[in-house]
Amino acid sequence: MGGDRAPDMVIHGLEIAAERHPAARFLLVGDAAVLEPLVSKHKRVRASCTIRHAPDVIASDMKPTAALRSRQSSMRLAIDAVASGEAAGLVSAGNTGALLALAKIVIKSLPGIDRPAMAAIGPSARGDVVMLDLGANVQCDVRNLVEFAVMGDVFARTVLGLTAPTIGLLNVGSEELKGDDTVREAAEILRASHIGPQFHGFVEGHDITAGTTDVVVTDGFTGNVALKTGEGAMKLMGDFLRQVFTSGILAKIAYLLVRPGLDRLREWLDPRRYNGAVMVGLNGVVVKSHGGTDALGFAHAVDVAMDMVVHRFNERIREDLGRLGLDKRRGADKSASVPNKGATPPTPPGTAQMAPV
Amino acid sequence: MGGDRAPDMVIHGLEIAAERHPAARFLLVGDAAVLEPLVSKHKRVRASCTIRHAPDVIASDMKPTAALRSRQSSMRLAIDAVASGEAAGLVSAGNTGALLALAKIVIKSLPGIDRPAMAAIGPSARGDVVMLDLGANVQCDVRNLVEFAVMGDVFARTVLGLTAPTIGLLNVGSEELKGDDTVREAAEILRASHIGPQFHGFVEGHDITAGTTDVVVTDGFTGNVALKTGEGAMKLMGDFLRQVFTSGILAKIAYLLVRPGLDRLREWLDPRRYNGAVMVGLNGVVVKSHGGTDALGFAHAVDVAMDMVVHRFNERIREDLGRLGLDKRRGADKSASVPNKGATPPTPPGTAQMAPV
Repeated sequence: MGGDRAPDMVIHGLEIAAERHPAARFLLVGDAAVLEPLVSKHKRVRASCTIRHAPDVIASDMKPTAALRSRQSSMRLAIDAVASGEAAGLVSAGNTGALLALAKIVIKSLPGIDRPAMAAIGPSARGDVVMLDLGANVQCDVRNLVEFAVMGDVFARTVLGLTAPTIGLLNVGSEELKGDDTVREAAEILRASHIGPQFHGFVEGHDITAGTTDVVVTDGFTGNVALKTGEGAMKLMGDFLRQVFTSGILAKIAYLLVRPGLDRLREWLDPRRYNGAVMVGLNGVVVKSHGGTDALGFAHAVDVAMDMVVHRFNERIREDLGRLGLDKRRGADKSASVPNKGATPPTPPGTAQMAPV
Repeated sequence: MGGDRAPDMVIHGLEIAAERHPAARFLLVGDAAVLEPLVSKHKRVRASCTIRHAPDVIASDMKPTAALRSRQSSMRLAIDAVASGEAAGLVSAGNTGALLALAKIVIKSLPGIDRPAMAAIGPSARGDVVMLDLGANVQCDVRNLVEFAVMGDVFARTVLGLTAPTIGLLNVGSEELKGDDTVREAAEILRASHIGPQFHGFVEGHDITAGTTDVVVTDGFTGNVALKTGEGAMKLMGDFLRQVFTSGILAKIAYLLVRPGLDRLREWLDPRRYNGAVMVGLNGVVVKSHGGTDALGFAHAVDVAMDMVVHRFNERIREDLGRLGLDKRRGADKSASVPNKGATPPTPPGTAQMAPV
C-alpha cells in the first residue's frame, strides 16, 4: 500500500518480477478489497501470489513511534511474515522511517551487529558502487563503521557478484592522518582485519562517482547528504542539457543526431536501475523501494531482495563477522537509535509492501 | 610560490587582477630571484607590485606542524603582513592545511568566533550558493554551526551582494525532528536569532544545487564530502557527454549545432568562476585559491579577497555576532583544532601567496 502510485505500481512491478523469477511465490499484504481486483487482472501475479488482508496502512508522513503502535498495518504484517520465517524477504515502497523502526524491533539485528544500515548501489565511471550507511544512523562509532564495511563487502559480493570488492572509508582527505578519531580508528581496524587486503583506505567525495572503490563506507549523516548531493548535481546538469537541446530547431536536430548516446546516458543513470535500498544487518531481508518509482523500478527492488535471499546474504555476513572477531564492548553510542532521527530517501514514500517468499 | 604552476600562474593572474583593480597595490611574497624576471615582463604587475623576498617555501605535502616551524617561508611572511595590518588581505594557492593552521595561529580568530571555517561559492539552479564549512573543522558543535550561519549570511551579502540571503542547515531530512541533537539545537538558536527571518530550516543534499537557500551551513566533514561528491557527479556526467559528442561524425556535427549552449554550460560550471575559498572567522582576509587553477581562476580569487576588504567583511561579522549575543560558555569542543585534521580541497596545492594591500 506504500509508494506514490500504490498499489497499482506494486502489482505492475510484481508482474515483471514474477516473470523474472518464475519459481518465486509472493505474499501480497494490504487491503484485500483493493488488491483482489488488481491481482485478477495480472496473469503472473495471480498465479504466484497470495493476498494477506491488512486493515491498516502506515501513512507516508506517520512518525515511526505512531507506526510502531499499529499492529494490523500492511507494513507490520509483512514484517511479521519475515520475522516468523514465513517470508524470506520483504520489499516495501512505504514510509522509510517506519519500515526501519519496525524492522529493527520486530525482525531485529543479526547477532553481533550493533546497528543495521541502509545500503544501495549507484553509478560510477568504473561500474556500480555500493554505498552505506545512507541514513539509518546519523551518528556512528568505530564499531558501526567497521560492521558497515563487512556488510558492504558481502553486499558487493552478493548483489554485484564481485569476488574481492575494494572498500573505501569516506573522509575529507585520503592521507592517513585526515579526519576525526572515529574514521581513523575504523581504518586501523579494517587494515588489520580479514578484509584488510580489500581495504583501500580513505576515499573522498569525488571518489564515489570515480569508482575508486567498489564499496564506500560512511556514517548515515554523511552518506545521506552525499547521495542526495550527487543526485542533485546530476539533476542540475540534466536540466541544463534539456534546455540546451530544446533551445531551437538546430538544437533539436542535434538532439536527434546524438540521441542514441544520450539515451544510453539516461539509461545508465536511470534511478530505476539503482532502486532498492537494502536494510543490511537485520535478521531478515528488507529492501526499501523508492516511493516515487514505477513498476520497472519496483521490479528491480524485488531483484535485489531475490539476490540477497538466493546468495544467502545474511549467512555470509554472520560468517564474516565471526572472522572479524569484534567484541561487543564498543557497541555503546548515544544517538540515532531513536527511530525518528533516521534519514529518509529523497521522496516522501507511501506505505505498501510485498514479500517475495 | 604555491599552486601547480606557480609562480608563473600567480603573476599572470595578478596581471589580470591589477587591470580589474587599478587602485590596488600588491605585495608579492616569494623567492625574489625567481619573481623579479617574471614581474618585469608584466606591465601592470610591475606598476602595482612590491616583491618581498622569502627564502623558504612550504611544500604542498608538508604537514601543518612542520609548516608552523618555518618562519621565513613565503606563506608565513605573507600571513605576517596581514597580521601586522600591512596587507589588507591575502590570496594563496598553497598548502591548505598549512595556510589554515598558520592563519589561525598568527592572524587569529575574530573576537567571539570559536572556529574559523572555509566558505566558497558554487552553482545552483537558482543562482550562486555559499556553502560552509568545507573542511576546516571535521567536528562541529552547536555554537560553531550558529557562527557559520552568521558568517555565511555576511559572506552572501558581501560577496554575492544579496540583501537578505536565505540560510539552510544541511541535514538528512527537512522535518524539524530529523538529524542529531547538534543540528536541531543549532536550528532552534538560529530561528530565535536576528537572522531568524532568513533561516529556512533544514535543507538536504539535493537542495544545494537546487538553490533552495542562498547559504548552506554544515560541519566541515559533511561540507567537504558534499562539495567533492557534487563535483564528482558533474565530472561523471561531463565525461560521458564528451564521449557522446566524440563518438562519430554525426555526433561531431551535433556538437557544432549545440556548441553555444554547451559552451554556456561549461562557462557556467567553470571552476575558475568559483575559485577562491575564504577562511572566514579570521581577524583578516585570507582566500585560498585552488592549487590547480590558472591565471583567470587566480584573478577570481583576488576578486573575492577584494570584495571582502572593500565591503568590510570582518567588521560586519563583528557587528552581527554582537546582535547574536552568543556567550562563550559553549565554545568547548574536543577535536579538529589540531591543524592536520583539517580537510584539503580537491587537488594537492603548492605554496605561493600574494597579498592585495
